[in-house]
Amino acid sequence: MPDRTPSDSGAAVLRHPLLASIDSPSDLRALPESQLPEVAHELRSLLVDTVSRTGGHLAAGLGVVELTLGLHYVFDTPEDRVVWDVGHQAYPHKILTGRRDRMHSLRQKGGLSGFPKRGESAYDTFGVGHSSTSISAALGMAIAAKQRGERRNVIAVIGDGALGAGMAFEALNHAGSMDIDLTVILNDNEMSISPPVGAISNHLARLLSGKLYTSMREGSKSALRGMPQLRELVGRWEEHMKGMVMPSTLFEELGFNYIGPIDGHDLESVLKTLRNVKGMPGQRLLHVVTHKGHGYEPAEGQPVTFHGVTPFDRQTGEFRKSKAKGPTYTKVFGSWLCDTAARDPRLVAITPAMCEGSGMGEFAKRFPQRFHDVGIAEQHAVTLAAGMACEGVKPVVAIYSSFLQRAFDQLVHDVCLQQLDVTLAVDRGGLVGADGATHAGCFDLSFSRPLPDLVIMAPADENECRQMLKTGYEFNGPAMVRYPRGVGPGVAVDPAAPALPIGRGLRVREGQRVAMLAFGTMVAPALEVAEELDATVANMRFVKPLDRELILALAREHALLVTLEENTLAGGAGSAITELLNAEGVVVPVLQLGLPDRNVDHATQAEQLAECGLDVAGIRDSVSRALAALETKAPRREQTLAG
Amino acid sequence: MPDRTPSDSGAAVLRHPLLASIDSPSDLRALPESQLPEVAHELRSLLVDTVSRTGGHLAAGLGVVELTLGLHYVFDTPEDRVVWDVGHQAYPHKILTGRRDRMHSLRQKGGLSGFPKRGESAYDTFGVGHSSTSISAALGMAIAAKQRGERRNVIAVIGDGALGAGMAFEALNHAGSMDIDLTVILNDNEMSISPPVGAISNHLARLLSGKLYTSMREGSKSALRGMPQLRELVGRWEEHMKGMVMPSTLFEELGFNYIGPIDGHDLESVLKTLRNVKGMPGQRLLHVVTHKGHGYEPAEGQPVTFHGVTPFDRQTGEFRKSKAKGPTYTKVFGSWLCDTAARDPRLVAITPAMCEGSGMGEFAKRFPQRFHDVGIAEQHAVTLAAGMACEGVKPVVAIYSSFLQRAFDQLVHDVCLQQLDVTLAVDRGGLVGADGATHAGCFDLSFSRPLPDLVIMAPADENECRQMLKTGYEFNGPAMVRYPRGVGPGVAVDPAAPALPIGRGLRVREGQRVAMLAFGTMVAPALEVAEELDATVANMRFVKPLDRELILALAREHALLVTLEENTLAGGAGSAITELLNAEGVVVPVLQLGLPDRNVDHATQAEQLAECGLDVAGIRDSVSRALAALETKAPRREQTLAG
Repeated sequence: MPDRTPSDSGAAVLRHPLLASIDSPSDLRALPESQLPEVAHELRSLLVDTVSRTGGHLAAGLGVVELTLGLHYVFDTPEDRVVWDVGHQAYPHKILTGRRDRMHSLRQKGGLSGFPKRGESAYDTFGVGHSSTSISAALGMAIAAKQRGERRNVIAVIGDGALGAGMAFEALNHAGSMDIDLTVILNDNEMSISPPVGAISNHLARLLSGKLYTSMREGSKSALRGMPQLRELVGRWEEHMKGMVMPSTLFEELGFNYIGPIDGHDLESVLKTLRNVKGMPGQRLLHVVTHKGHGYEPAEGQPVTFHGVTPFDRQTGEFRKSKAKGPTYTKVFGSWLCDTAARDPRLVAITPAMCEGSGMGEFAKRFPQRFHDVGIAEQHAVTLAAGMACEGVKPVVAIYSSFLQRAFDQLVHDVCLQQLDVTLAVDRGGLVGADGATHAGCFDLSFSRPLPDLVIMAPADENECRQMLKTGYEFNGPAMVRYPRGVGPGVAVDPAAPALPIGRGLRVREGQRVAMLAFGTMVAPALEVAEELDATVANMRFVKPLDRELILALAREHALLVTLEENTLAGGAGSAITELLNAEGVVVPVLQLGLPDRNVDHATQAEQLAECGLDVAGIRDSVSRALAALETKAPRREQTLAG
Repeated sequence: MPDRTPSDSGAAVLRHPLLASIDSPSDLRALPESQLPEVAHELRSLLVDTVSRTGGHLAAGLGVVELTLGLHYVFDTPEDRVVWDVGHQAYPHKILTGRRDRMHSLRQKGGLSGFPKRGESAYDTFGVGHSSTSISAALGMAIAAKQRGERRNVIAVIGDGALGAGMAFEALNHAGSMDIDLTVILNDNEMSISPPVGAISNHLARLLSGKLYTSMREGSKSALRGMPQLRELVGRWEEHMKGMVMPSTLFEELGFNYIGPIDGHDLESVLKTLRNVKGMPGQRLLHVVTHKGHGYEPAEGQPVTFHGVTPFDRQTGEFRKSKAKGPTYTKVFGSWLCDTAARDPRLVAITPAMCEGSGMGEFAKRFPQRFHDVGIAEQHAVTLAAGMACEGVKPVVAIYSSFLQRAFDQLVHDVCLQQLDVTLAVDRGGLVGADGATHAGCFDLSFSRPLPDLVIMAPADENECRQMLKTGYEFNGPAMVRYPRGVGPGVAVDPAAPALPIGRGLRVREGQRVAMLAFGTMVAPALEVAEELDATVANMRFVKPLDRELILALAREHALLVTLEENTLAGGAGSAITELLNAEGVVVPVLQLGLPDRNVDHATQAEQLAECGLDVAGIRDSVSRALAALETKAPRREQTLAG
């Protein structure tokens, strides 16, 4: 674990004298309330300081500085449980809960996680990363406390975007009908990662504008203008009605006591309200209005840009230039999408709240009628596409690999079972670097491969990615292109490149004894290793259907097959190859290389790959060892066969 | 396809003369409205007639007879699109849409599906089976129609239970904020499969009792009693308020125009309302109140019993006795759950709306404080368990295999990634018979196996099932026991049988040359085949972690390994074995037997297994062929090794 150098630490004390004295929330609670505004100021300063160096999530944390202070000041954490949804906003929480001096290690190998993580701190009550889990988890904690006869406050803090997800609703629906004590804090910043969509966000806007409450009062005033003698009566009637017609917010309909909205940057108001809420029986939803990026001007103006950032200059807010590289796979997808939409009026694009992250910004501008951001609603996104595909339009769903896990049943039951013509552009397949295990796309080949009739492709480079998107789109059935986070090897993209023949791989190097059957990102390192070992390399292209002829030919011609994939070994593409070999009765030594059966923590993507033995050195070592073992074992194996 | 005999057909015409003339909805639409009550009567009669012979879903269909008639009478189906949620209620729809004479083949091999299915009829607009997909699908259809400039009505019919699921909410939330024409019919029968739970159902109850609307008026009346001169003014004010304070139903908050509630068995009212709704612009939710089992006395009294039924006597409603067999796996689970809860106060049980189906009825009665039916909310169910597990209680989640697909991300991200102590009792693993492909649990081993730290077990018999539940429960981490629908081989259950050592299989027969490595249900047929072929048989017990030593020993001792599982071959337990062999550098012929890479249609479980080559005859043939091929191929294989 890297440590802060003493001089750094000294400077930090100078810049953040109050924070320097806070090693845990009990230190915070020992401060007089009058000092909290200064702590808030220091928190923002340290946050900007840290993230400008490490990169990470900034705007969300800036938005909840007062709320975080309030929670740890008013509640008895960690005995009281605070569950942060998603966790982008949890950096101030980390600073206050004993991790101040490790903030510089954020999202780096061996350093702090970018999300709350149970193993990291007792204050991290629930590991998060994916959105909308907090109410379910908090309710589970509240039920457990009740069952064990323990009295404690349990608080879920959830954003307005995350609240639109189905599972948050399931949790509200369940909690609202129970006899349970639970606080849900709605952190309403009118902004998930992309601007929020959906009726919920309209509802919140109405709550904020106060219409639901004040229109009643306003109405009465105007109707009774100049009739003061009636006002008192109607005033009484109004009170009466309030008890009867209310609940009128959606949350009250769901059984929650609605409190708010309050200004989440007014520390006094936050503290007062939290004190009122503390120990209150039953379910309540506290509506807190915050502003992403609050208190740091560059971020206030561009909350989407400052959601997740690379290192930047804290004075100017300008991002440090990264070396010019080719376009990311995300951009390759975005360009293909626009070009195809321009030619084909049937194309429709769907994103579950990841417009920018999925590279659809330009598409959204150019084709707003055919762009559907459904909010954080992966299940709906996929079945919506299925419904569209029934009616002669051609939906493309752009989704991150780890979020496709949310729509697995919809992929199984609504798309594949009906063989509907839906194209899935699956971004962030494989290891994703600093976001760590929660966001890794390590399972997609394993969970999608069993689905009948689904075509699954993994591109080796940018141009092939575009070809595969074209192939999947033209294929009249479910198809998925799975590409990695970030840039590829830098192959120029030819917009006119043709679609690929379904289920055909490509020999990219002819060699001796060893054949490397590589999928997607593994083609490039396989070629490097093959140069050294004089191995054959095939770019398999299709995880499903496999290229049977190619595999059988490679098996005939070589003494060892090596499968390579950036997916867990369990049930992945390599296993697809061994299944085929077994079905064909071909017995040949196979070395399967892929991701291990454990969670891979945050680090750079290159570090993660090396850690998993999937960099050039790791692959070379594994193949060399397997070749050596083959020499030794050959006689024994023949013995077995004879036995 | 079995056909009705002529005499049968003649009798049907006599009993159902109007239906006999309806070969499609256009025939129905040609009838005068005055004849519809008689058609409704005939529909009920034919429905009871059919299901009493074939078994299937009865109560739901009886509840929507008038609604189904109304939809096909008022709307221009199939040009207008009706999407039935889940599909249990679609039998009357099938009868009216050209499938009357094939109803006797329902849910039987080669016969009609028990659910709407696109391949079966143009009137089946969307294949269903899992709940809560209809609004997403219908919205997709409506968006596509708009984009293509087609004018049509799109109608989703969803039950009150299904409405509580997250994805239905996601769809409402999205649809409510769009400029789109969409009708959602809420079929409120106050009963999903088990009685509904959650705030939504409370909300619906309030709507039904009319409180939200009438309390306002009542309030005004009592407040103004004896002050007639004020009534008029307040009446005006009330009208004014209605426009401003309303929308007040949850659906109106979500952007839908709420219409209802109407009596779904009052045909006149149904027709009138549907005519009003037809062609109305925008989003509307029509609240129709129905009664499951309506019009058939035995079902009215016991809607849960008559939800899904085996054949019964239509006069008395008594079920035909099936041959006495051992307890189902479901019952084994239910008994274990009660016994364990009686001893261990930490046990908590969770079901997503499948209390009876999962065998938890007795538990719910005996331990109501520790029983949590969360409604149709699989995602929430699993993360709720994760939250509980953080706090020292021990949750057991009972869930069907195919519904666990809905909670895949929660299993990955909330349970396994945090290594939380959650026990999953996964029922209906493998082929499920008459419910067909939508309900088959063919993928669970493939999608769960990649998850680090998850223990996965599959019992070979009833007693082992109980031992595995005990093992999973005692294991301090995520564990899953996956058992089949129905009964097992009939092994007596010993409540005192000990937990199993994690990751250890069992040799159950010693033989020659061939070793059969069988999982779960495949142990019994493997033993039968092994008797004939003198093969070794291992009951592998653990899909994860595998018994490395056992597998390596069997590989050393035999010329052929055969893996057997009732799960898709792609990424299943057999592939786990080949992954291990490859990792160990062991090269041995492996025959993988399991479910094929296609959807298996409805039939009996035995028929399905035979169709997939997983009955005794099929297994014997496959193993014999592999052995014969091995003899022929051995020399060639050695050549390959040398090459």
